[in-house]
Amino acid sequence: MPTGPTTRDGFLADCRARITFDLLSNTWNGVTLWALRDGPRRHGELRERIGGISAKVLTETLRRLEYNGLVERSAYAEAPPRVDYALTALGRTLLEPIEVLGAWGFLHGDEVLQAQDERPQ
Amino acid sequence: MPTGPTTRDGFLADCRARITFDLLSNTWNGVTLWALRDGPRRHGELRERIGGISAKVLTETLRRLEYNGLVERSAYAEAPPRVDYALTALGRTLLEPIEVLGAWGFLHGDEVLQAQDERPQ
Repeated sequence: MPTGPTTRDGFLADCRARITFDLLSNTWNGVTLWALRDGPRRHGELRERIGGISAKVLTETLRRLEYNGLVERSAYAEAPPRVDYALTALGRTLLEPIEVLGAWGFLHGDEVLQAQDERPQ
Repeated sequence: MPTGPTTRDGFLADCRARITFDLLSNTWNGVTLWALRDGPRRHGELRERIGGISAKVLTETLRRLEYNGLVERSAYAEAPPRVDYALTALGRTLLEPIEVLGAWGFLHGDEVLQAQDERPQ
């Protein structure tokens, strides 16, 4: 994560404030956390819920979220054995920022697409 | 931007809802928009305000934000000539989501760093 020199602008210079941007810098992180909002889900359920994500990419995403303390993996000694994934208490606190982002996209996404159409890159 | 097949979960399948994640998927996008919140800024002023960003990366970031209709570049025929960058009306609406993200980082950033320390990647 980028850590700039101290500037007059604490919000930008503070490393912790940038953590959220970094966490959501991979689209799948936010989407996967959101797909876990109603409770624990198995790998296959998550894939179906998210749509358009490969098994490999979902596995990588879940590992990344685990590493950052946002998701917890649980293995149950049942027959057949079961593994599911759930939000941690910390992961749950990220749902609000994700919801605010998603709501913005719903409201303003078309304006962004329109701007892209009007402007050659 | 990923566009999955239609799923039972409209929020995840909707392309527009993913636009915000994509826009903020580059950390510098959010940080640069935030640095413009108080009004127009010149390139050099922005660099100083943000901290830790190279001139080249800032130029690329500003072009990307222009392309997405979030920032407007204005050139003034003064002596010496002046160029500045400002949020568009659309760009201004992104300040709230960015603020929510930043606030989360302030509150919970340390917990993420702690989780990373405790868990081998």
